[in-house]
Amino acid sequence: MANQKKGKQSFLLGNSPVISAWASVAGKKEAEGPLKDFFDVTETDSYFGQKTWEQAEKHMQQIALTTLLKKAGMQHKDLGLVFSGDLLNQCIGSSFTLRNTGIPHIGLYGACSTMAESLLMASMAVGGGFFDNVVALTSSHFAGSERQYRFPLGYGGQRTPTSQWTITGSGAALVCSSGKGPKITACTIGTVTDLGITDANNMGAAMAPAALSTIKAHFDDLKTSVEDYDLIITGDLGQLGKEALLTLAQKEGVPLGGKLTDCGTMVFDLQNQDVHSGGSGCGCSAITLCGFFLDHLNTGKLKRILFCGTGALLSPISTQQGLPIPGICHAVSIVGG
Amino acid sequence: MANQKKGKQSFLLGNSPVISAWASVAGKKEAEGPLKDFFDVTETDSYFGQKTWEQAEKHMQQIALTTLLKKAGMQHKDLGLVFSGDLLNQCIGSSFTLRNTGIPHIGLYGACSTMAESLLMASMAVGGGFFDNVVALTSSHFAGSERQYRFPLGYGGQRTPTSQWTITGSGAALVCSSGKGPKITACTIGTVTDLGITDANNMGAAMAPAALSTIKAHFDDLKTSVEDYDLIITGDLGQLGKEALLTLAQKEGVPLGGKLTDCGTMVFDLQNQDVHSGGSGCGCSAITLCGFFLDHLNTGKLKRILFCGTGALLSPISTQQGLPIPGICHAVSIVGG
Repeated sequence: MANQKKGKQSFLLGNSPVISAWASVAGKKEAEGPLKDFFDVTETDSYFGQKTWEQAEKHMQQIALTTLLKKAGMQHKDLGLVFSGDLLNQCIGSSFTLRNTGIPHIGLYGACSTMAESLLMASMAVGGGFFDNVVALTSSHFAGSERQYRFPLGYGGQRTPTSQWTITGSGAALVCSSGKGPKITACTIGTVTDLGITDANNMGAAMAPAALSTIKAHFDDLKTSVEDYDLIITGDLGQLGKEALLTLAQKEGVPLGGKLTDCGTMVFDLQNQDVHSGGSGCGCSAITLCGFFLDHLNTGKLKRILFCGTGALLSPISTQQGLPIPGICHAVSIVGG
Repeated sequence: MANQKKGKQSFLLGNSPVISAWASVAGKKEAEGPLKDFFDVTETDSYFGQKTWEQAEKHMQQIALTTLLKKAGMQHKDLGLVFSGDLLNQCIGSSFTLRNTGIPHIGLYGACSTMAESLLMASMAVGGGFFDNVVALTSSHFAGSERQYRFPLGYGGQRTPTSQWTITGSGAALVCSSGKGPKITACTIGTVTDLGITDANNMGAAMAPAALSTIKAHFDDLKTSVEDYDLIITGDLGQLGKEALLTLAQKEGVPLGGKLTDCGTMVFDLQNQDVHSGGSGCGCSAITLCGFFLDHLNTGKLKRILFCGTGALLSPISTQQGLPIPGICHAVSIVGG
C-alpha cells in the first residue's frame, strides 16, 4: 500500500514503520514519581557529572542514545538519521549530543511537542523509503529551563499554582522499516493555534486548544474516533490543561470517552511532589512514552494509542513583548507490536 | 522509480519533486547589493511597519509566504505543510507567522542551514507521497540577531574583520508533486562536525569543515562529482569561510573545480558595503536561492546546482561556557526546469 495524505492534516503510512527499541533517562525527582520502575537509567545528580546544566542535558541525550543502541544491538554507523530537538536556545542539547558522531541529523523545534514531532518525521523518513533506521530523540532539564525561561533558581522565585515542573529527562525511539515492536500507522500534523492566552505560567491552558484541534483533525481526517483507541495521550498539559481540554472538547462536541490521559499528570505524584499542575518540557512526553507506554504496547497491555505531543511556542521575548502563546500539537497513532 | 537511500547520508528521489514557485523579501542593505534586481519585495524600514524587530521578522515571513502563494496562484488551504525555522530563540519568527493560518507546520532548527534543511524535508514529504504542496520557509533579521547573539545595536560594539552581517530577509519555496520548475533530484543530510573553532565572530571557519564533509559525502554517496554541477553553492561561509573551505578541500583532495560560490559573498558588495566577511543568517542562502538561483535554473542559465546550506550550531550560552562551535551542512541537488 502506498502512503496517503488523508484529509487536511493527516497521512496514512503504507508500510507501518516499527518502533523496534526505546530508551528513557530520568532525573532524581522523576525517579521518585509514579513511573520510577519504568525508566532505563536514573540519576540523582542534577548535573549528570557535567559542569553545567546545559551539558547535563546533552549528556542525558547521549545516555538515551547509547542505551537505545545497546537495546537495539546497533552502533552509530547503523543509524540513517536522527531527528532531535530540545528547549535550550538554538537546541544546543541536541546538536552537541550528535557532534562528531557521524550520524546524519535533522534539527527540529517543536517545544514540548518534540517527541511526537520527531517520531512523526521519523515515520515519514522510514515510510517514504528514504532511510531504514531512524531515531527520534529529545530532552529537557528543569534547572536549565528555569533559568532560560523564568528566573535563576538561586533567586528563589515563588511558583504560581498554574505552573508546571519541567522534566529532567530524555527519551529516544528507534523507528525501523522492519522488525518487531509497536507500529506507527498514521500521523496528524498540527497547526499553530492561538486563542490569546498570555500567561506564561499557564502553558497547559495555552496548549489545550491546539491539542483539541489536532485530535479533532485526526478523527475527521482518518474517519476514526475515540472508540478506536485505548488511550488518547497528551504531552504535557498538566492537570489544569487537561481539565481545560476536557471542557473545550465537551463544548465542541468531541467525545473523548474518559480515555484522555496526560503525561504531565502521570510522571509526578501531583498530591505529594509539589509540582503544582504537573510535569512539562520535551522530556515529559518523551520519558512517559519511551519509559511507560511503548512497554505497555509491546506487552499487549495497550493495543492502540494516540500520542499527542503538545508544545507552547512562546519565547521569553515574545512574552515580554506582550504577545500571546501559540500552541501546537502533533499526533501519532501507534498500535501494539 | 522508488526513493532510495544512497551511501551513508544521501537519498535519491524516485519522482523528483518540483519547485514550482519561489519568493524573496529583502531589507534595505540587501536591496542595495548586487542582487537588488532579483528580489520580489524590498523594504527600507527595518521594522517592516511593526513595533519590534522580532515582529518585523515574522512580518517578512508572512510577506514571503503571501508572495509565494500569489505567484503560485494558491491559497493557505492548498498547502499541505510548511517546514520553517529561524534564528530567533524558540523560532518565534516561524511559529508566529503560521499561527491561526490553519496550515500544518513542522518547526525546524538548523541555524543558517535552514533553507536547505527545509527544502530537503519538503522533498521528503512530497517525494514520499505524504503531501502534494509543501513550503520551505525561513528568515533572519540583522537587528534581532545582533541583540540576541552579540550586543544591542545601541552599544555600538566594534565588529571584528572576520565577522559577517546577518541578512534581513526571508525566502520561501513551494515544493510540489507535479508541475513546472526546477526539480530536486537528490539530497545529502549533514552530520554535526566540530573541529574545535571557538571564535563566535568567525562562523565561516566553524562551518567550512561541515560544508566539506557534506559535499564529499554527496559525491561519494551518489557517485557524482563537481563535473556534474554548474555550481556548488554554500550557504553563508563568507569570504574567509569560503577560502577556508577551498584550503580544506585541496588538502583532502576534493576537487571543486573553480565552481564554488557562496551566498554570503554574493548578496553584498564586499568592497563597498562594509560587511566584512559577507552575509550570514538563515535569510542569506534563502534570498539568494529564492531570489537569484531558482530564476537562473528556471530560465536555463544554470542546469544543475548543489545547494549546500551551512549552519553554525552554537548558542550564546555554549560560547560563554567555552565550548567550540559545531557546524552542519545539508545539500540539495537541483536541476533546471
